[in-house]
Amino acid sequence: MIPRYSRPEMVAIWSPETKFRIWFEIEAHACDAMADLGVIPRENAEAVWKARDAEFDVARIDEIEAVTKHDVIAFLTHLSEIVGSDAARFVHQGMTSSDVLDTTLNVQLTRAADLLIADVEALMAALKRRAYEHKDTIRIGRSHGIHAEPTTMGLTFARFHAEMSRNLKRLRTAREEVATGAISGAVGTFANIDPAVEAHVCERMGLTPEPISTQVIPRDRHAAFFCALGVVASSIENIATEIRHMQRTEVLEAEEFFSAGQKGSSAMPHKRNPVLTENLTGLARLVRMAVTPALENVALWHERDISHSSVERAIGPDATVTLDFALARLTGVIDKLVIYPDNMLANMNRFRGLVMSQRVLLALTQAGVSREDSYRLVQRNAMRVWEEGADFQTELLADDDVRAALGEDEIREKFDLGYHTKHVDTIFARVFGE
Amino acid sequence: MIPRYSRPEMVAIWSPETKFRIWFEIEAHACDAMADLGVIPRENAEAVWKARDAEFDVARIDEIEAVTKHDVIAFLTHLSEIVGSDAARFVHQGMTSSDVLDTTLNVQLTRAADLLIADVEALMAALKRRAYEHKDTIRIGRSHGIHAEPTTMGLTFARFHAEMSRNLKRLRTAREEVATGAISGAVGTFANIDPAVEAHVCERMGLTPEPISTQVIPRDRHAAFFCALGVVASSIENIATEIRHMQRTEVLEAEEFFSAGQKGSSAMPHKRNPVLTENLTGLARLVRMAVTPALENVALWHERDISHSSVERAIGPDATVTLDFALARLTGVIDKLVIYPDNMLANMNRFRGLVMSQRVLLALTQAGVSREDSYRLVQRNAMRVWEEGADFQTELLADDDVRAALGEDEIREKFDLGYHTKHVDTIFARVFGE
Amino acid sequence: MIPRYSRPEMVAIWSPETKFRIWFEIEAHACDAMADLGVIPRENAEAVWKARDAEFDVARIDEIEAVTKHDVIAFLTHLSEIVGSDAARFVHQGMTSSDVLDTTLNVQLTRAADLLIADVEALMAALKRRAYEHKDTIRIGRSHGIHAEPTTMGLTFARFHAEMSRNLKRLRTAREEVATGAISGAVGTFANIDPAVEAHVCERMGLTPEPISTQVIPRDRHAAFFCALGVVASSIENIATEIRHMQRTEVLEAEEFFSAGQKGSSAMPHKRNPVLTENLTGLARLVRMAVTPALENVALWHERDISHSSVERAIGPDATVTLDFALARLTGVIDKLVIYPDNMLANMNRFRGLVMSQRVLLALTQAGVSREDSYRLVQRNAMRVWEEGADFQTELLADDDVRAALGEDEIREKFDLGYHTKHVDTIFARVFGE
Amino acid sequence: MIPRYSRPEMVAIWSPETKFRIWFEIEAHACDAMADLGVIPRENAEAVWKARDAEFDVARIDEIEAVTKHDVIAFLTHLSEIVGSDAARFVHQGMTSSDVLDTTLNVQLTRAADLLIADVEALMAALKRRAYEHKDTIRIGRSHGIHAEPTTMGLTFARFHAEMSRNLKRLRTAREEVATGAISGAVGTFANIDPAVEAHVCERMGLTPEPISTQVIPRDRHAAFFCALGVVASSIENIATEIRHMQRTEVLEAEEFFSAGQKGSSAMPHKRNPVLTENLTGLARLVRMAVTPALENVALWHERDISHSSVERAIGPDATVTLDFALARLTGVIDKLVIYPDNMLANMNRFRGLVMSQRVLLALTQAGVSREDSYRLVQRNAMRVWEEGADFQTELLADDDVRAALGEDEIREKFDLGYHTKHVDTIFARVFGE
Repeated sequence: MIPRYSRPEMVAIWSPETKFRIWFEIEAHACDAMADLGVIPRENAEAVWKARDAEFDVARIDEIEAVTKHDVIAFLTHLSEIVGSDAARFVHQGMTSSDVLDTTLNVQLTRAADLLIADVEALMAALKRRAYEHKDTIRIGRSHGIHAEPTTMGLTFARFHAEMSRNLKRLRTAREEVATGAISGAVGTFANIDPAVEAHVCERMGLTPEPISTQVIPRDRHAAFFCALGVVASSIENIATEIRHMQRTEVLEAEEFFSAGQKGSSAMPHKRNPVLTENLTGLARLVRMAVTPALENVALWHERDISHSSVERAIGPDATVTLDFALARLTGVIDKLVIYPDNMLANMNRFRGLVMSQRVLLALTQAGVSREDSYRLVQRNAMRVWEEGADFQTELLADDDVRAALGEDEIREKFDLGYHTKHVDTIFARVFGE
Repeated sequence: MIPRYSRPEMVAIWSPETKFRIWFEIEAHACDAMADLGVIPRENAEAVWKARDAEFDVARIDEIEAVTKHDVIAFLTHLSEIVGSDAARFVHQGMTSSDVLDTTLNVQLTRAADLLIADVEALMAALKRRAYEHKDTIRIGRSHGIHAEPTTMGLTFARFHAEMSRNLKRLRTAREEVATGAISGAVGTFANIDPAVEAHVCERMGLTPEPISTQVIPRDRHAAFFCALGVVASSIENIATEIRHMQRTEVLEAEEFFSAGQKGSSAMPHKRNPVLTENLTGLARLVRMAVTPALENVALWHERDISHSSVERAIGPDATVTLDFALARLTGVIDKLVIYPDNMLANMNRFRGLVMSQRVLLALTQAGVSREDSYRLVQRNAMRVWEEGADFQTELLADDDVRAALGEDEIREKFDLGYHTKHVDTIFARVFGE
Repeated sequence: MIPRYSRPEMVAIWSPETKFRIWFEIEAHACDAMADLGVIPRENAEAVWKARDAEFDVARIDEIEAVTKHDVIAFLTHLSEIVGSDAARFVHQGMTSSDVLDTTLNVQLTRAADLLIADVEALMAALKRRAYEHKDTIRIGRSHGIHAEPTTMGLTFARFHAEMSRNLKRLRTAREEVATGAISGAVGTFANIDPAVEAHVCERMGLTPEPISTQVIPRDRHAAFFCALGVVASSIENIATEIRHMQRTEVLEAEEFFSAGQKGSSAMPHKRNPVLTENLTGLARLVRMAVTPALENVALWHERDISHSSVERAIGPDATVTLDFALARLTGVIDKLVIYPDNMLANMNRFRGLVMSQRVLLALTQAGVSREDSYRLVQRNAMRVWEEGADFQTELLADDDVRAALGEDEIREKFDLGYHTKHVDTIFARVFGE
Repeated sequence: MIPRYSRPEMVAIWSPETKFRIWFEIEAHACDAMADLGVIPRENAEAVWKARDAEFDVARIDEIEAVTKHDVIAFLTHLSEIVGSDAARFVHQGMTSSDVLDTTLNVQLTRAADLLIADVEALMAALKRRAYEHKDTIRIGRSHGIHAEPTTMGLTFARFHAEMSRNLKRLRTAREEVATGAISGAVGTFANIDPAVEAHVCERMGLTPEPISTQVIPRDRHAAFFCALGVVASSIENIATEIRHMQRTEVLEAEEFFSAGQKGSSAMPHKRNPVLTENLTGLARLVRMAVTPALENVALWHERDISHSSVERAIGPDATVTLDFALARLTGVIDKLVIYPDNMLANMNRFRGLVMSQRVLLALTQAGVSREDSYRLVQRNAMRVWEEGADFQTELLADDDVRAALGEDEIREKFDLGYHTKHVDTIFARVFGE
């Protein structure tokens, strides 16, 4: 987690304070459930809640852990300092550290997913707004980096919106994957604790009970979670790459917003670098980094080994914090992206109508000209455009053979941009459902 | 795709014959739709179906491709050789190669997903059968490779079943991800083809139309697909790792089935290697290999670049064929796994009751003995077990202080295995819903 | 290994025929060494060499393996069919299958490395030739895709040459990593075979003896090997990315060679796609795929488990064949790359001298103008260029304040391209050592 | 970088203080070189060194950066606050931010490599000591987790030593890869700065000049660097896996050191978890995470894009700090690993001599018994051992047919462990060169 690529709300989910707060809630809810079952006295369960509004002293807990070498015991010791050792005496009874740790991790991941879901929704709102704004802004579509046929900037935004709507669904599924808790004891048999405790704690913490756990919650869930983050990151890279291309000097169809005050902008107006989207490209790589170790974490030995733990200490915060930041940054970029429709037109017309050559070729064959002849007709006009800078439509109109085959109106019609945009509304309806 | 790790049904999905068959169907359905729209003559559309039962000659198509350097054109040329050039003259009209190629890839991935889903269901059936068979077969649960508390072999099978049921869901989601088609033209604007053609073709091919495509179907879908395969592979590794541990000489709680005829088995009865599960561990790595390039494939340039194509030529077949083989192999392993309940008991009793020491410790404190004294009492008896090979229960029964605190019955009760299995039925109900 | 991305010489290294040939040589050399030691009769050792020129019948070996379920035994059986069971009776004595298999793998990887090294040398030759050809071909250097300062096309080729010279070194190191053999028995103790046999076999096979092996050669070596391939692949992607950028419609500073016969080239002269370099981008991803599983293969259980084997069956051929093909393809692309110096100049002058604004700014401050004033002076002229399409140098020359500070000559001097190329020779000397 | 997996010396390399110190040194040395060239006044160059012993105020620099949005400018501003704006006026002249940033990164990576090299040397010393200590400690070698033939614990340590000696070499090569600097300007042409400045700065910073750079140092170097770290991490996993296996309850051939004070150790003497090596397994995954993004960082656009930067901000510190910690932790584990030779013997004898069955089989055939008969003889005795718990040697001695073929002495000789250890000295000489 790198401070400059972090936002406070997501960082807070991973703070020691939050962690201890969740630990406390799990323990206190467990006490309630045990009191319900008559396993521990009601008054002890109630007394634990005295810490409800307490601040846990992280430094103090660290101090105790330095002695006990055990984080959960250190916390419980500190808890008993707050609520009194009598009240605390039944806390954690029959539970295993992992009951607390694993359930906590999933609470954190679930909350992180909530933020990410909100991030994607915000991004989608920006994309939608820009899509409608530029629904009819003509630009050239490119395959292989080469001009192909006209499309519109709105369609570009719309497809990013569609991609993000799939990511929204993936994140919701990912959230569901990890929204489970387990209070099932040392090897998952509930030997020392009733399943009712798990049910109560999970319900209060917004989770569902893990159907079958060992000492830990199975890690295929977390692997799927981080895979989903990796896909979202790749989509961010996809959008960032488009913008980086649009901003390159020779294309200049868009620019990341450049605030008036930013030094250098006016003395070197050509030198506005797409640093945000380049940065997003790098951040995407960082988020994706979590995928492989998360997959390697699945195969634990028997009822658990602890190899997954150090990995999750890193990728849990790092991947979620970075992705949250990246989504927010991308939303800002989209929101304020400066679009240059004139440059889009200029680029499209760079080869004076040549992008329509395929359409003309098709028209000639449909008009009954043989494939070979059609090709030859297009070729001789195209070459004049390519080599002498002539205008393709003008050349075609001046070519008797072409005119004979197609007629002037049809030649002109082949250069009508409306031909390319006639289904934009259809596509928008499919994407935005409106 | 390595022949020895391949099964014919999945391999067939990726054969040139299948590919050309799907190409044909897409083209023929597209002709139907165009005839419906009045764009091409009905009789031409119908004539194309003459190739319905034809064998496409792969060698001939390769031959043509060697000249045209274009696979779709080569196929269309061969098609016209079959149905006649007149019938074929409207085939592919207004379409782009990618319309065919991308839709075909998704048909193949969807069919591959169907096989994988069936594979997981078969594996789940085997796991369920073995789970019930060994529901009450006691074995020691292990954390960190160290004995913890008793569990049952049935619970082990049950948790693998639960894990695979999650994978089933993931594969169904993955199938949905890629079950889309696109017939939308060079940059996805439907400039030269009506969306109705796409709708018709998709419906006939068992797909839904991609809401918004460019020249290609967006690759976040495929990334999510291969991520799902990677998670399933990691679950295979998880199960394989458990079996490899169980079969190691010192544990010997289970063995992969060893046919009577297999050489060496009886002259060296100790030397039966878990080669299938070791192999599965390697195959899991192979399947996971697809994840990173699939993620890197998402960020294509503008309306498409072709960098994804070579990647998919490899990972499409390789990952699905390998995973199919691995799932089937694992099902066989589970089905015939030889379980040794006696060895499980012997292993559990290896330290003569010491695994119960934590339960005894807890009982002493609950009986009012101070934490320190409880610890001391357990320790002095545990040490005799550990160092002198004594029996823990016998030692405790002979220890006056322990007897004074707990009484003989309670001491014996602490060694009752029923304590650990009392919730097995509950867990089974959660897993198998019965 | 995908046929269309394969070259025969590398494929041959991985053929069954080659494998059996290497197996034979290892066994025959081992017999010689054992005869030297007096462990087996000399005449038997000599008789084995009768198979020196024999063709091994792969189908027959497969047939035997189908029965014995053991590849090495199947081969040895076939060998005895060729040389006679008497001659063959001492073959493989005291050896373990892995002695043959692992040593063979390393022979194959070493030979593969030799081809890759030759590939890189060929690529370097092409890069060098093009570097000198375009040593002085001016083009704009770009950071962030934005025009920065002039450089030359020769420098671009030269830096790719330098990068490939590092890769050459890495491949040589990688070759050394895997150029070891082991004939050390079931757990590497030489219990049943004398180390002298290993020494003799390795010497004859062009390997050095692995200082300490178990049943297998340690896999950190192979991990390092595939990492090196991954780095080379990334360099290929780097060069491919540059060319893809250069060929995009708006830049058009270079094009992959387009043979006269290639359809479409002249009817749609704008539509020449950089498909080779896009393909190389994908192939780079494919080669890199091998890195993670190769790293995961290192941690084998005890003296060996066989999880690495299936991985290597795939990545051994796949990564080397793909990289060999990619290097050769890239060499062809470089060799025939069509460079457009005029377009380079046109692109550089796109913003009529604005790229020199930083140099002018610096000159003004060096001439004693305050930072703020310098900035203001540059800005007001730059804005006229940016907004009105004026020429920067002309504007500066017409600006009295700028002229007062710098004088006409110095202003002109700031636009001298020689300023940017004055160290090209120095850099070439560093790269090419000439 | 996770505090609990960090050591101060490596962390310090990545602190802002260290970074600014290196920035300062690069700038000051550059001033010296420029003074030597007569480009700037000598007294200004000397005056800059006034900051030699100054503490740079990180908070102040951050404050300035918050305004300027540029880290290098913020630093230079702060530097001029320290040395005076007059002294500072020529600092950074003709340089580009990347000249400082990239050279600094390589200084940091080089220093990190130095620490890692020392770490590996310390680990090798521990491994060597333990290897000699247990040179003759017999244990069973295992393939597939199954008993194979005897080996010694010393050989296990020796092979880890050999593996780490290869890693030492890899780290030295990796260090060399990144020990370059570049002061070459905006696109690497030295337009505004003389190559002599680069030469001087590099020499003073312990680097060599990058033969050809663009705005940045080529990233294939860094990719190779992080690959080397990934291989070292996998070797750590390899050793950790061995120890985890040795410590598992049923094997118990070794234990991580357990300090007397550690709670729970004596009341539950069976419950000592190999948590350090499990943790190392996870840390290995974390280090390896850096490999893929480092490879993805190689292909920058044209003369640079900044996508690599955010990646390196994370993986630079994270991978080196984690690997440093892991190597040190592993050294501690090896150093204090508790070895149980008695358990090793007990494990080996678990199947009462059956591990020798292959040797007996071989001896019978060598004594002229047919393959089939030999097999039958071994089998009937092996089965009594396996099924009835008899002793293999005793059974063979009592089998008239076996005795007839081999004689009593040879039978006994087949169980001589010296047979398996006779080449241990040879192997040690190969590993330790002594």
